[in-house]
Parts: sequence; structure tokens; C-alpha cells
Amino acid sequence: MRIGVLTSGGDCPGLNAVIRSVVHRAVVDHGDEVIGFRDGWKGLLECDYLKLDLDAVGGILARGGTILGSSRVQPSHLRDGVERAKGHVDELGLDAIIPIGGEGTLKAARLMSDSGLPVVGVPKTIDNDIAVTDVTFGFDTAVTVATEALDRLKTTAESHQRVLVVEVMGRHTGWIALHSGMAAGAHAIVVPERPFDIEELTRVVGQRFEAGKRFAIVVAAEGAKPRAGTMAFDEGGKDIYGHERFAGIARQLSIELEERLGKEARPVILGHVQRGGTPTAYDRVLATRFGWHAVEAVHRGEFGHMTALQGTDIVMVPLAEAVETLKTVPADRYDEAECVL
Amino acid sequence: MRIGVLTSGGDCPGLNAVIRSVVHRAVVDHGDEVIGFRDGWKGLLECDYLKLDLDAVGGILARGGTILGSSRVQPSHLRDGVERAKGHVDELGLDAIIPIGGEGTLKAARLMSDSGLPVVGVPKTIDNDIAVTDVTFGFDTAVTVATEALDRLKTTAESHQRVLVVEVMGRHTGWIALHSGMAAGAHAIVVPERPFDIEELTRVVGQRFEAGKRFAIVVAAEGAKPRAGTMAFDEGGKDIYGHERFAGIARQLSIELEERLGKEARPVILGHVQRGGTPTAYDRVLATRFGWHAVEAVHRGEFGHMTALQGTDIVMVPLAEAVETLKTVPADRYDEAECVL
Amino acid sequence: MRIGVLTSGGDCPGLNAVIRSVVHRAVVDHGDEVIGFRDGWKGLLECDYLKLDLDAVGGILARGGTILGSSRVQPSHLRDGVERAKGHVDELGLDAIIPIGGEGTLKAARLMSDSGLPVVGVPKTIDNDIAVTDVTFGFDTAVTVATEALDRLKTTAESHQRVLVVEVMGRHTGWIALHSGMAAGAHAIVVPERPFDIEELTRVVGQRFEAGKRFAIVVAAEGAKPRAGTMAFDEGGKDIYGHERFAGIARQLSIELEERLGKEARPVILGHVQRGGTPTAYDRVLATRFGWHAVEAVHRGEFGHMTALQGTDIVMVPLAEAVETLKTVPADRYDEAECVL
Amino acid sequence: MRIGVLTSGGDCPGLNAVIRSVVHRAVVDHGDEVIGFRDGWKGLLECDYLKLDLDAVGGILARGGTILGSSRVQPSHLRDGVERAKGHVDELGLDAIIPIGGEGTLKAARLMSDSGLPVVGVPKTIDNDIAVTDVTFGFDTAVTVATEALDRLKTTAESHQRVLVVEVMGRHTGWIALHSGMAAGAHAIVVPERPFDIEELTRVVGQRFEAGKRFAIVVAAEGAKPRAGTMAFDEGGKDIYGHERFAGIARQLSIELEERLGKEARPVILGHVQRGGTPTAYDRVLATRFGWHAVEAVHRGEFGHMTALQGTDIVMVPLAEAVETLKTVPADRYDEAECVL
Repeated sequence: MRIGVLTSGGDCPGLNAVIRSVVHRAVVDHGDEVIGFRDGWKGLLECDYLKLDLDAVGGILARGGTILGSSRVQPSHLRDGVERAKGHVDELGLDAIIPIGGEGTLKAARLMSDSGLPVVGVPKTIDNDIAVTDVTFGFDTAVTVATEALDRLKTTAESHQRVLVVEVMGRHTGWIALHSGMAAGAHAIVVPERPFDIEELTRVVGQRFEAGKRFAIVVAAEGAKPRAGTMAFDEGGKDIYGHERFAGIARQLSIELEERLGKEARPVILGHVQRGGTPTAYDRVLATRFGWHAVEAVHRGEFGHMTALQGTDIVMVPLAEAVETLKTVPADRYDEAECVL
Repeated sequence: MRIGVLTSGGDCPGLNAVIRSVVHRAVVDHGDEVIGFRDGWKGLLECDYLKLDLDAVGGILARGGTILGSSRVQPSHLRDGVERAKGHVDELGLDAIIPIGGEGTLKAARLMSDSGLPVVGVPKTIDNDIAVTDVTFGFDTAVTVATEALDRLKTTAESHQRVLVVEVMGRHTGWIALHSGMAAGAHAIVVPERPFDIEELTRVVGQRFEAGKRFAIVVAAEGAKPRAGTMAFDEGGKDIYGHERFAGIARQLSIELEERLGKEARPVILGHVQRGGTPTAYDRVLATRFGWHAVEAVHRGEFGHMTALQGTDIVMVPLAEAVETLKTVPADRYDEAECVL
Repeated sequence: MRIGVLTSGGDCPGLNAVIRSVVHRAVVDHGDEVIGFRDGWKGLLECDYLKLDLDAVGGILARGGTILGSSRVQPSHLRDGVERAKGHVDELGLDAIIPIGGEGTLKAARLMSDSGLPVVGVPKTIDNDIAVTDVTFGFDTAVTVATEALDRLKTTAESHQRVLVVEVMGRHTGWIALHSGMAAGAHAIVVPERPFDIEELTRVVGQRFEAGKRFAIVVAAEGAKPRAGTMAFDEGGKDIYGHERFAGIARQLSIELEERLGKEARPVILGHVQRGGTPTAYDRVLATRFGWHAVEAVHRGEFGHMTALQGTDIVMVPLAEAVETLKTVPADRYDEAECVL
Repeated sequence: MRIGVLTSGGDCPGLNAVIRSVVHRAVVDHGDEVIGFRDGWKGLLECDYLKLDLDAVGGILARGGTILGSSRVQPSHLRDGVERAKGHVDELGLDAIIPIGGEGTLKAARLMSDSGLPVVGVPKTIDNDIAVTDVTFGFDTAVTVATEALDRLKTTAESHQRVLVVEVMGRHTGWIALHSGMAAGAHAIVVPERPFDIEELTRVVGQRFEAGKRFAIVVAAEGAKPRAGTMAFDEGGKDIYGHERFAGIARQLSIELEERLGKEARPVILGHVQRGGTPTAYDRVLATRFGWHAVEAVHRGEFGHMTALQGTDIVMVPLAEAVETLKTVPADRYDEAECVL
């Protein structure tokens, strides 16, 4: 068989591990040929690719980034994108395409599959917000990086007798905030799924100081937002302290908490460091298994599906199901972590 | 309510996270009282305990070991062990006991439960071999430590043009070997569940050198063993090279591979470093959730059960089921990792 | 002898290691008595202290922060500060005071020493800017944390085809920027000691893209500044893009580079994560040696001095010398690292 | 100019950083040409080399091992080794050779230099035992890896109430044992430079248990040995417990301490994990500076020297001086660390 692989969307630890696994399983075990398209769908649309043999994937298992490059280009961005892609698949004699990517990529994969192309998807997102799979690779690395930072910040917050508001990734869902906050013993966690009440947050943090503690750590997903009407913004989009609405939740919360508590509060924005670099052992195993099972699905002709983890098993789920809903943090998980209502 | 907690058996990253979580949930949220028995069942048998309040568990979430101490004493070791334990539970007015431990501890927990004590177990083992739960805390840390070591050993093996045989924990099951071997891209993995054929292993490793590679890494679970009759031991328990049978699988394999391949081979035994120290973020979250749900089970009166992870949910399973069988690596997981037959 | 210890100023990995070492050397080896003042000079001024024996310092060697607490209070802040301190030293029968702190603390230490108190200082700063000592503890940890972040950011910058401007600590000196930038292979480094020319920086970064590279990493010390007149600020303190002058160097540089290069550029501000948490092995050894030698100086009566590393030796240097000048990055060190002129 | 580089001897974190630095400084800054010999002196003797340009050293700064390969071959191993090497240097038109290696390599470098070849050496050893340089790269990484292991082992030793004897690298000198033992707070350290008295060691460890502690950690350099006559070996080379003399110091000490103290004692041998993998930030900076200054020495014609760190400066010292003596742990450093006499 002849298989094409591509990686699309933002950086995510484990991409190279999937590529390597696809090549190992397909080339070594099945005697397939594998090519890799450069820069995601762009490579497919422009017929820009390289041959992937064992040497090409040597030493990449633990390396961050993707040897194939990535871009945010989608076939639907071009009027004749799908047709052009199909043309190249025919031309190159490909029996299957394995796109590795997030929500947008999987939607594109579904579109391509619906138009008749043999597609097997591999889900990728550090945010862990793809439904039908228990976890996606990259998430554990992001949580690990955030937790290590929180561990370090704790002693600093304590020495300086401060509130630190630490902003972690998660525009639409609070998974990274929830897990890193639990892992590091944060004193409050705010997530997009449950708009917070600033009064309640102030009360929770304030209780710590009343109990004689010298510091507090608040973890905020970047997409966390106040409950409607609880933090005032004027028409110009500035809050009551003159701070811009979109300056980032950590900055806003620091200002609010400092004002309300009379304690020094500082924002820390972890940023891109959460999505790059070497994957954790957990993510390498998951990524490797996804790659292996994607090749198996290709050989079984199980197209229009993507790999997913359910319990300890890798299963195949229809792409249609995968992109229907966002996996948000359920209510009982908030309760466990004492997120702020 | 009044709840007693104890930790029993070997060291395992995450024990303190469970203790902390039990105290947070029980004391803060439910207004319970919690005491901790010293050195496992020994503390219960000798009525040796301390009060656990918020201060007692401050700062322990990320710390390895157990603030309660541990021992390998089981109630059944004493003729009147169960009776004595029951007496102390009555005396102290305890409404529940939460023992945190491995197979032996959970068997003891079941025995205590059968004799009428209100017990909720929390499973603990770095080996990941307890049935009915997808994972146990401590396992991810052990795999992470082993993977970091394997990452480092690769460059050394390459520079020295050697075979390294790296022995990881796992007397009865190969989970740590399987996951760390996959995560680090080991060239062969041997596990207890599938006795290996030394000829086959030699062939697999030899192929690498024939293909021009300069080194190979073999990961061996400490309980891995040769298929019957494939490695000769004389009556004195020595192999054909005069090496003792029980010198450890890594040493034996190094000698065999060096002889058969004509390449320098060296054993590395990772040892206790895999079971100590700060837990990974993954293990801290799992341990925290186990503690939280154990307290909830106590409040629901769901005794005779233990916490378990199934998919993304924490569920309660009967202690009877938990200790019936060992969770071994299933055949399809070997195939994914190309373990040696 | 009776010795008082205190830690003053911001958080710095290794403070606990010094405290532990002082107690080990003084109490165990010399039979001294050691007390620790709470929250820096504040504890001395208010006579707020605790006894430090072996148990008090058990398990703190690798822990971040300081068990004694810290504050930015200096004796000179009070009109009768020095007198009051002297009074308490007499009252408590102290034979020596060991203040551990940065530039401000060492100046206070000198003041106290000049007024007749028996003082032996221990220098502390993650910035590595104290003259007369080759290195200070905390610096290696800060560089290590920044380097790990830079390692991760590289794959992300590459995947996203961006310039990342990473701001590290260093208001007056560029040591952390220089070392972490060299260690991570940054493509340009800007430091306070050498005001940069934005044209030159643009040229250096632009060359990479012209050579076909897909990303660039610029490391900027927080105190780095443009050469006079090379970046325009209007009277309101806003630059030509309307960005505030004090928004941070990384934000300003990102905007400038994005405009000038036509490449996406993003700021990352590492912040407090560089100054907290467990110290590296290097810093633990250095801190331990400083503590040991401070006690020896006390026993030799070598007051008015502080510990310093010169080559591989710990020596004692007069406090007067230590605080005279700031240790800046010398010109030849820039050249090695190809810092931008 | 045309410069040849080679790496010789065992693996050492930082080798690639030196190679990269030589290429950056020579090719980019001076417009030189650089070639790399494969597998150390072997490549020079067999004229086996590759061209090293910027692409060849892309992404290797943080990678363990050496892209040039290594071997233990020395020119003096061949009767006409030196002559043959000189012939190839002439043939290739090389203006300088930069060998990077340990004691043996530097001796060979001196031999080559004495015979008229233009040689600038770069010292390399994780053991830190090369005189005239304060530190060598690789040492900090080895100490860091050992310290991380010791940190983890502490909680395990405590939970299991044991003595752990941890063997670290250092056949002739105790630098790694000294620094990792200090950094981790080991309770006793034994090093080759000061043969230990087993009675004294037993006393030191025993005191801890008498003081109510539950565990002890002993760090032993692999070359540590008992003071003559203090541990009995019979003629067959077995000690009184029937253990072989050369089974390794950690195993011997465990057996002795267990017998003498009546406490469980276990050996842990860290092994090769100390000498491989990604270098610490410290080692990357030092290796980079060594490479930079080696190129400068070539351009100044300062042959027959090697790079060395003295204080914070990189200086050039004659190869003759460098290999004269081994740098052993001086007496006052033992005292600081309370090594066992």
C-alpha cells in the first residue's frame, strides 16, 4: 500500500511519535510505502512531499515539533481544494491519507472522506477537548509543564506573600487548568465552562489569608470569564480599574483580587511553553499507539474514522461523531477540584 | 464521621496525595475527623496514630514517600490480628477505615471487610497489575523515571557501540517495561507474560547491527524469563557461562547477547529509583481523585469496595473482584510494542 | 557560640540549603546554638525568632523558598533600626549574625558591621550581579529553568514559523539572558549592559529567514533597552505603534520585529518561575558551602566579611568591597555569545 | 583556515555543543572550513571524515552523544600512528586539529603536538579529574543526574526503613560522589582519595538510627575502597561473607552494613545513566565557550595548549601541564562534606 501522512495546526508534543509509528508499522511490518506531505494540507494541495523510510524517522520519537512542518491551511480554503487534493491522491497512487490534527483538521478530514477519499484521522490537541476519546496526546505534556511551573511558583508566592494568578492554555475548555491546578494544589481554579463569580473567588482566596496562610495560587484557563454582570466593563471595553477587557484573564484577575483583598497579586502567563518540546512518556505511548492503529485501520479499510482512546483500548470512531461536540469539563469534575463557582 | 487512614506496603509516588485528598475532602467539606495510623496495619494493631488536620497535610501533595510511614505487617500475621484491629476501631469510635496499598493490603482489606469492619480501599502499585482499574497511581511516575533513564542511555549506548540491557521493575507483569520501552523506542522488550526465546531476541537485536546501526537497547522487566529449555541451566543453577540463575535478567541477557552477537553488551539495573520521589502530574491527579472518592464512598456507606479508574471515571468496585486476578499485559499490547516472542 | 540567621529579599533557590548548612556545621560540629529570625531583618528588629536545631532543618535542603520567611524591611528603614537591632543582639546574647541576602541586605549588613555588630554575610541573588564572587546560588537554577523553557519554545516557534521574543529576569545585568541564550542556542540576545540597535537586531534575525530557516528565538533580559534614539517614543511614553514604553521589552520587541520583518512575532515572559522551586545540584552545593564557611568565619572572628566563590575556593571578602559595584557582563562575554550590538 | 575536529573516548554530555560551537565560530565568524573525523583518532588515521557546515550542526546543541562518533583508538596504538596522522593532516591541508577528549586523548594530543602537528585540545570528562581546569563539561550533568536519583531514593529508603548504598561514577576521584552527595544531603560519602574505615562508616550510619531516624543514604564513588586491612578478604578474593572482591563497592558495603547494623541495606548502582543524554545548561555554556576559545587559539597559533576554565575565564594551558597529574578531591573539601575517614 501507499500511504500519505500530514500534520496540521498548532504545535503539539507527540506529532513526531505518531509519524514514526506510522512508518514503523506500515513500512517494516506491512511492507507499505509512506510519504509525508509538507506543512499539512498545504503539501497535499501543492503536491509537496518527501518519502518517509526508517532513516527519515530515526531519533524523532522524543523530539518536539513535527518533521513534516505544519500550517493552518485547510482544503476548504481553496475553491477547488478538495478536487485538487483528490487529483494529487490519484496521481500519487495513494491508498490512504492519515491527517494528524485538531478540530479543524478533523473537520477537513471528514469533508475529504465524504467526498470519497480514503482517510483515517488521528486527533491532536493539547487542550484535550475532542469528544469520543478519553485523552489526546500533548495534553499530559501541557499539564506536566504547567504543574512544574506551579510547583516553582508556590515557593515564590510564599516568600513574597502574594496572590499569583497563573494563566494556562484552554480557550474553550478548562482541562489543563483543572488537571494542573489539582496536581499542584492550587487554591482556586477558574475555567471557561463555569463563569466565575468574582465575589466568590475573592472569598475563597481571602479565607486562606484569614486562616494565616501567606500566599495563594489561582489557576485560570485563558478562556475563563466572569459570570455575566459580575465584573463591570464600561462601553469602551475597560473594567472599573481602566484595564482593557482583552488584556488576558490573569491580568484582570490580579487587579481585581489586589483591590478586593488588599494583598499584592501578580499575573503569570505560561504561554507557548506548554505546547512545545519533548513529550512525556505518557504522550509518547499514546501517540505511538494512535499511529500503529491508524495503519491497522487503513489495512482493514476502515476509512472515515479516527483513532481514539477508550479506557485502555484504542478504538476507531467515525469522524462525524468526533467533531460534533467539544468535550468540556463535566460538573462532577469541578466538584472534585473545588473550582470556583 | 471519624475516619482512619493507613498506607501499607512499598513506596509509591502519590501516597501523600491520597492522604491529603482524604483530609481535604473529609475535614474541610464534610466536617469529619481523620486520624492516620502509623506504619500501615501495624499502627492499627498497636493503636498508634496521629490526628490529621489541614496543617498535617500542608505541602505534602508533591512529596514522595508517606507521612504515615509504612510496613509490610498484615493483620493476618497475628493470630488475633483481625480481632485486635476490630477492637481498636471500636475503641477509637471509627466509622470507616481507608487502607491504601497493593495486592496484599487489599486482600487484608477484604478480610477485614468480611469480618464486619467498614472498609474502603485505595489501590496502590507502581506495577499497574491490579485488575478492575485502568491504571494505578505511581505507575506513570515509574514509567517516566524509566523513560528518562532510557533517553539518556541511548546516547551512551550509541557512543560506545554497545547493547544495553536495561532492567526495570515488574516481577509478575511487564507494564513498566512495555510503556517505558515504547516511550523510549527500545529495540526489544521482554516481559514476564511472554517467556522469550533467546534465539529470537538475538536475531532481532542482530538485525539492527546488520542494518548498520551502532547500538541497541533491550528493556527487560525484572520478572522476564526465557522460554522453557531455551537457556540452559545446570543443576547448580548456573547457566552455560557459569553465571548464577538468580543474578538478575539484565546480567544474564547481557552475557548471552554478548556471546551470541559478538558485540559488547552491558546490564543497567534501574532499581529503586523508579518507586520514589515526587509523583508526576498524572499520578497526583489520579491519587487526589482516589482520595476524594474514597471519602464519598464512606459517606454513602459503600464499604467493601475500592476506588478504580475506568475510562475517565472513578468508580467503586468490590474488593473481592479486585484481588481475584493479576492484570497482565494482553497479547495485542505486545504486538503494538513488538515485544519479543 | 550563639548565632542568629536571617534571610532577606526576594525568593532564591538555595536559601534553605544555606540555613541547613549553617545549622549542621554550627550545631553538630561546633556545638553552637542557632536561632533564626522570622521574615528577614524584621525578625531581628522585632525580636521574632525560632530555635533552629537539626529537626528544624530536616528535609529542607532541596526545598525552594525559605523556612524563615523573608521581607524587604531594612534596619535603615527605621530611625532607630540599627540601635534596636543591636539591643536585641545583646539581649539574646548573640555572638554573630549571618544575614543571607542580595545587594540591599549586604549593604545593611555592612552598616550593621560598621556599627560594631559581629556580622558575616552570605550573598544571594539569582541575577549573579554581586561583584567579588564568581557566582551566587540561585543563578544556575534560574538559567536552568529559562533554558528548559527555551528548549520547549524552539519547537513551537518552528512549527508556527514565528519569531519568539523571550523575556528573562535581569533588570540591571544580562547574566541570565546570556547564559540561557547560549545554552539554548538563541539567535540573538539583548542585555542591559549593551543597548541594542533595533536595525541591527532586525538584520540579524532577518538573515535567518533569508537563509531559509523557519523561526528565530530572541532572548531579552527584562532590563534590555534600545540604544538612545533608535526606537522612538512620543512624549506620552508610547512608541510609534502606540504601545506603552513600560509594557515590557519582549512586547515592544515583538511589535517592532513583526513590523520590520513582516513575520509573526510573539512575546513570552517567563517571570517568577525563574526564581522559585527546588534548586539545581550546583546551587545546592554552592549554598551548602557558603553556609559552612560562614560558620567557620564566625569561629575565626572574621566579621564584616561575606562568603564568595573564587575559582573552586570559598573565600571571605570584605562587605565593603562586595557592594561597591555591580558585576556586569564584560565585553568579551558578549562576543562569545554574539549578543546584538 | 581548514580545521579538523574529533571526539574521542567515552560518552560525555556537551560533546555536540563543542562541535557546534567550533563550527559556528570558525565557519560563520572566521570563514574557515571545518571537517569532522569519524570515531575519534580512528577517523584521522583512516582519513574518514565529513564536512561540517552550519546545517550539519543544526539542532545538536542540546543533544547527548556525538554526531562524529567516538572510539578508544589512540594514534600510539599503531606503530606508525603518528606518522600516518601527520600524513593525512598534510594531505587534507589542515591548519589545525581540535581533539576533544579525556586524559588519554589529551596525552595523544600532546604526543601529536610534540611531533609537530598544530593541535588545540578541549578537555572532556564527566569525572572532573583533569588538573588545571576548574571544571570540565559533563560533570555538572553527571552530578545532576545522580542528585535527581538520590532525591528519589530518599523517600524509598525512608518508606522501607533501609540503608541504601548508592554507587556513582568515579574510579580514581570522588568528585561526582562528593557533589551529588552534598547536593542530596547524603549521610555518608566514600571516595577513592580517602580509603574508608568500615568501623567508622558503621558508626556514622548507626548514629542516625540511634537518633531515631528511619533510613540512611551512603554515596560511594565506584573507586572507593576500604582502608588497608579493615575489610578482610581471603585468598580467593572473597570477603568474610563470601562476596567477591570485585562485585562493586555498593554491594560490598551493603552486605557489611547490614551485618554490622542489623538493618536492611541495599545497593543501587546508577551506572551509565550518568554519562549520557542532554547536557545541563551549565555544561552547554561551558562546552560552547571551550569550542569558541579553541577556534580563537587556532587563529592565534597557540598550539600545544588546551582550553581550561579558571574562575570565570577561559584560558589556554599547555597540554603538558594538563596531563601531568590527576585532580583529586582536596582534604578541605572532604571536611565540608563530612566524608567518612
